[in-house]
Amino acid sequence: MLTEGFAFETQHRMGAARVGRLQTPHGLVETPAFVAVGTQATVKSLTPEDLHNVGTQIIFANTYHLYLRPGADIVAEMGGLHRFMRWDGPIMTDSGGFQVFSLGASIEQGVGKVASIFPDEDPNTPRPKRKPTEGQSLVKITEEGVEFRSHLDGSRHFFTPELSIEIQRKLGADIILAFDECTSPLHDEAYTRRAMERTHRWALRSLEAFRTSHPLHGYPQALYGIVQGGAYHDLRVASARFIAEQPFDGIAIGGSLGRTKEDMRAVLEWTIPLLPDEKPRHLLGIGEIPDIFDAVARGVDTFDCVAPTRMARNAGILARTLDGKRLPKFRMNLRNARFKRDPRPLVEGCTCYTCRTYSRAYVHHLFRANELLAYRLATIHNLHYLNDLMRQIRAALLQGTFDELRRHWLGE
Amino acid sequence: MLTEGFAFETQHRMGAARVGRLQTPHGLVETPAFVAVGTQATVKSLTPEDLHNVGTQIIFANTYHLYLRPGADIVAEMGGLHRFMRWDGPIMTDSGGFQVFSLGASIEQGVGKVASIFPDEDPNTPRPKRKPTEGQSLVKITEEGVEFRSHLDGSRHFFTPELSIEIQRKLGADIILAFDECTSPLHDEAYTRRAMERTHRWALRSLEAFRTSHPLHGYPQALYGIVQGGAYHDLRVASARFIAEQPFDGIAIGGSLGRTKEDMRAVLEWTIPLLPDEKPRHLLGIGEIPDIFDAVARGVDTFDCVAPTRMARNAGILARTLDGKRLPKFRMNLRNARFKRDPRPLVEGCTCYTCRTYSRAYVHHLFRANELLAYRLATIHNLHYLNDLMRQIRAALLQGTFDELRRHWLGE
Repeated sequence: MLTEGFAFETQHRMGAARVGRLQTPHGLVETPAFVAVGTQATVKSLTPEDLHNVGTQIIFANTYHLYLRPGADIVAEMGGLHRFMRWDGPIMTDSGGFQVFSLGASIEQGVGKVASIFPDEDPNTPRPKRKPTEGQSLVKITEEGVEFRSHLDGSRHFFTPELSIEIQRKLGADIILAFDECTSPLHDEAYTRRAMERTHRWALRSLEAFRTSHPLHGYPQALYGIVQGGAYHDLRVASARFIAEQPFDGIAIGGSLGRTKEDMRAVLEWTIPLLPDEKPRHLLGIGEIPDIFDAVARGVDTFDCVAPTRMARNAGILARTLDGKRLPKFRMNLRNARFKRDPRPLVEGCTCYTCRTYSRAYVHHLFRANELLAYRLATIHNLHYLNDLMRQIRAALLQGTFDELRRHWLGE
Repeated sequence: MLTEGFAFETQHRMGAARVGRLQTPHGLVETPAFVAVGTQATVKSLTPEDLHNVGTQIIFANTYHLYLRPGADIVAEMGGLHRFMRWDGPIMTDSGGFQVFSLGASIEQGVGKVASIFPDEDPNTPRPKRKPTEGQSLVKITEEGVEFRSHLDGSRHFFTPELSIEIQRKLGADIILAFDECTSPLHDEAYTRRAMERTHRWALRSLEAFRTSHPLHGYPQALYGIVQGGAYHDLRVASARFIAEQPFDGIAIGGSLGRTKEDMRAVLEWTIPLLPDEKPRHLLGIGEIPDIFDAVARGVDTFDCVAPTRMARNAGILARTLDGKRLPKFRMNLRNARFKRDPRPLVEGCTCYTCRTYSRAYVHHLFRANELLAYRLATIHNLHYLNDLMRQIRAALLQGTFDELRRHWLGE
């Protein structure tokens, strides 16, 4: 790898899927692994002890949000993200580039991979003072970088690859990302190509900024490059080849994965075979259970997503149940009146703190009464459930029973 | 005491103050003790483990709120409050009578002991659908009981002493309260007298309903009577004498304690000498640090208050500091910009989880970012801080240094 102190080792393969060990200065990540999202230097409602207890190995924080509040200098003064939030395990940060998409294109076009323009918006969080109207872009992309306005106070800021790396040095995550532009499913091929080519030039500038700067907090950081190219075959191939040639420590797959699950599978199948086998691969923004099986089967090692934690705060409990057509679904709405006097745990057999301790009736009551404890108990369950699924997936890959596990979960 | 399974023992006295042990079916309470408020069967943002860790001995839940949501029958079906919320320590419930005041008189008159008509309203909790307008009373008090409208959906309900006891049997708290009418500082003496006399008749009906009913959850419950009479000397004396004569397990002091701290001290000095020495005494709705010293010095054993937990959710941190005139104050606003880069714990020397783990800068950031973890970390600190003060008070009473401790804290 580019950076000493990091190592990725594949222990076992099954087709394109692999079981690995990602060594970081803050510990080992057994892969495939889910990366819990802690946008503002906190996985919403949980302490670091809670995170360890639910089996979280690594968390993800957002450069854009932390740059605006509390500010990268303050996090640096406090000793970096690990000491600031007291999480002693591995951390990744994104580059801020995703906000080019979520605060720019998705507002212009009214779509986005996420439901909200504010990636990890909480239903309990007050709205920003100045909310942009649809069709009004807050960002201006040039070769140099991206000008954007803060969703908090409307102030103007300018991000470049160099500044993104500088901020990420201050934040001090174990794994940081090159600065990229994230396109939407509504961008045409011509625009997506231009954005991809710019992302490649920014990748080189990010590498150069990384090489000519130093970690600030006493341990090394690794840098991942990002493959873009939307859902266009030729662009994904070109981007995978370009990023694969650079001396990144790992590769992230970003941007639009199309409009359907078939599109996502195609993007992974075009991209991953072109990536260096020895480097870890991260898929950005994916976390639904069927997508996890698809991504792991195609060779993804880690992925992050706000879905499990955001769902939890909306009373959406991860659980494998069957719908009216006997097809599996993975979400149970705990606000539903049928849980009002249900003495069972959220998920029978689940060993998380919430399921070991409380009834559906109680957690239902907490949600109906808008009680703060509800968000925490549901988040504990969802993260534990997903981390437990990842353990099952790793074990099944080692034992050669991944297809059975997949059929068991997805009923296919 | 009226009820087997309960005992109150005074271990030590110093003037009117006393150190005691209150034995309940769910364990011992060392007094003087603070009772943490868990209005809706949850001390907002905390688990039972958190409560044990901050040294909480006993909690308080609200009959009115639980009757409306989730409903007393559901709590009973789930095995009572202890099993429903998984708190294995002692619990008290109020009678619902306080809502006569907080949903009735305080709306009519625009005042109340609490800042809001919704006693433990959370800034993050959505407002009720139908908020009553000032001057419109939601309650109608008759000899039989109180008709009121739900703050949740406007539905009409009728509480009587008998129904209050029935609901409290279903909820299953260790200590339950007789049904009372709670008057406001704006009620004149004539009205306060009529309300007090009605409360006395309701006290007898509560006792009768208690005697002719049985605990539902396999352990006994104790019943406290409530002294009313506002800030009127003759009424407090009459009420104390009347309630003292009845075979209650303990005595609560309720209603208006006047408009000033001097008024509160006077009410306690009129009331407590008339109460039976062998019974535990609870002061309803008091929890500020100077008031705690005043109440303990006058012979109060336990008291509940939403202030420490509500303050916490508004970034108000319990801490002894000095104001501009070198007078002690007990609240530090952690949203204040001066904490933005402050690496110190919330309170230096504090041994709570929050102070042992996080910086002011981090918790400040969580509050500014409206992060759920902020409410929990601040609540942990405030309850720990207050429970620790109670430990200091008990030790000082035993060692004969209560006056020194009081001077140290209040600077008097």
